[in-house]
Amino acid sequence: MTATTSPVTIRDVGLRDGLQILARTVPTAHKIEWLHAAHAAGLRELEIGSFVPARLMPQLADTAALVEAARSLPGLVASVLVPNLKGAQAAIEAGAQAMLLPLSASRAHSLANLRKPPDEVVDEIARIRDWRDVSGSRCLLEVGISTAFGCTIQGRVDEDEVLRLVGAVLDAGADRVGLADTVGYADPLQVSRLFARAFEVAGDRLACGHFHDTRGLGLANVYAAWQAGVRRFDACVGGIGGCPHAPGASGNVATEDVAWLFASMGVPTGLDFDALLALRTSLAQRWLPGEALHGNIWRAGLPKTLLEEAA
Amino acid sequence: MTATTSPVTIRDVGLRDGLQILARTVPTAHKIEWLHAAHAAGLRELEIGSFVPARLMPQLADTAALVEAARSLPGLVASVLVPNLKGAQAAIEAGAQAMLLPLSASRAHSLANLRKPPDEVVDEIARIRDWRDVSGSRCLLEVGISTAFGCTIQGRVDEDEVLRLVGAVLDAGADRVGLADTVGYADPLQVSRLFARAFEVAGDRLACGHFHDTRGLGLANVYAAWQAGVRRFDACVGGIGGCPHAPGASGNVATEDVAWLFASMGVPTGLDFDALLALRTSLAQRWLPGEALHGNIWRAGLPKTLLEEAA
Repeated sequence: MTATTSPVTIRDVGLRDGLQILARTVPTAHKIEWLHAAHAAGLRELEIGSFVPARLMPQLADTAALVEAARSLPGLVASVLVPNLKGAQAAIEAGAQAMLLPLSASRAHSLANLRKPPDEVVDEIARIRDWRDVSGSRCLLEVGISTAFGCTIQGRVDEDEVLRLVGAVLDAGADRVGLADTVGYADPLQVSRLFARAFEVAGDRLACGHFHDTRGLGLANVYAAWQAGVRRFDACVGGIGGCPHAPGASGNVATEDVAWLFASMGVPTGLDFDALLALRTSLAQRWLPGEALHGNIWRAGLPKTLLEEAA
Repeated sequence: MTATTSPVTIRDVGLRDGLQILARTVPTAHKIEWLHAAHAAGLRELEIGSFVPARLMPQLADTAALVEAARSLPGLVASVLVPNLKGAQAAIEAGAQAMLLPLSASRAHSLANLRKPPDEVVDEIARIRDWRDVSGSRCLLEVGISTAFGCTIQGRVDEDEVLRLVGAVLDAGADRVGLADTVGYADPLQVSRLFARAFEVAGDRLACGHFHDTRGLGLANVYAAWQAGVRRFDACVGGIGGCPHAPGASGNVATEDVAWLFASMGVPTGLDFDALLALRTSLAQRWLPGEALHGNIWRAGLPKTLLEEAA
């Protein structure tokens, strides 16, 4: 088992990816409670907001306050989403430890989402890297290649184009890169193939798999990516963060389900299962009452075999 | 892709495994409609009932009538569950094309379920095989090794014991054997390992993977078994057939989700996706109103990429 037991990191992205499509705005005090509960459950990477104009995304307008709160939690790497240089400057100024810039491999999605074709986003990444280095900041710059497995607008996304962009963003100065199935189109064979090819381009700078469970293949895709060598995954407690193009469908893979997948295989994640389920209950009852939550393991609980091992 | 595109067979077991834990009894006329709709969706293997005493399982007391109805459908292999020789005799008399005998690898589960330890069930399999051969019947005898991945009563189930039983049931005369995660305990690594070892024992007579989605790993386990070489899977439209020990949790993997998993990877199943979803709607609205259905793909529908391919 030694080859399979290197630890896996789960980054919970609920406070950003989960909240950004909701109509409601969660009060800052609740978000800070959420942040503390996530940290207490053993999560050491959290995406906690986005530096986009508040008029576009009022749900995340308090991101600087969240970054401030996160800095008091020991061992926590708090990342924020930034769409451009201006957002990156705000992230660095706020003291975020990491920033994630999404670059859509689908040209149609990139134009719709950021109003720029992918290569102009690559240019922006180079400007962010320069600015960061000149400023003396050590904020990690990660790029998430979104719609890497298909796009609701464009349909198929060419794998060679995804790989070209992986190389281009690293050349432009990104510290690391991940592949995201933004709309829940990926299948396990595609995941195996594309991650294997992307590792050839990026080596260990390929450092994240981001999967949605829109069509039920979320955990199969996580497993396929893990088989390909991925050791860091995005997820959301309660599986929040659905795709606006698939109303009612599941969102991001649920943190507690991904934690269970790895626990079931004996792969350490450092997460406290009961604390994750308690966090899910707080989402359901206190911070997001009435919102659709997803995920599976919360219903059935851990199997007797695993409980025996833990005892 | 040639190595991965050999077809996969999905056997829908809803009319047996799905119905047996429900309090309601579905009228025979509805079951026959269901049978026809499943056949029309391209399903060519269906488990349609069980020859157990009607007082124990009144939901399936009309199994002989279902077998009769199934015989009129071209190309259909209708299988029934049989717990013992008496059930097997009834199955053969009714004209079933295949019979499935469950043998629990968990001694505790076997005693609770069949009131016999596993090796007495092996003896019964030998008697069934003898009786079948003497009777001149060609009814296929399949054994499903249940609780092969763990047991709610006993906890851990020893892999060597599972493999010993795989060999024993084949020696006793079973035509083929499958491994079943009866209670939703399996993980993908365990599935890979146990199926690989079981193929060494059984060769191509190892011919079924039966997975429950109780804890969300159903499709990841199907994928892992497929990677190990399994090309035939049990499933239920609407994911019915939950475990009575995990109330509210998902049941069998959903036929439409398994069909989608394989379609997403370009693996042929011969199934008509729209017809499967229509069958699910009939379950929800006409034959099982008020029962909890599960599964994922029905909410989001097929992705644009796959629809483009089909066009």
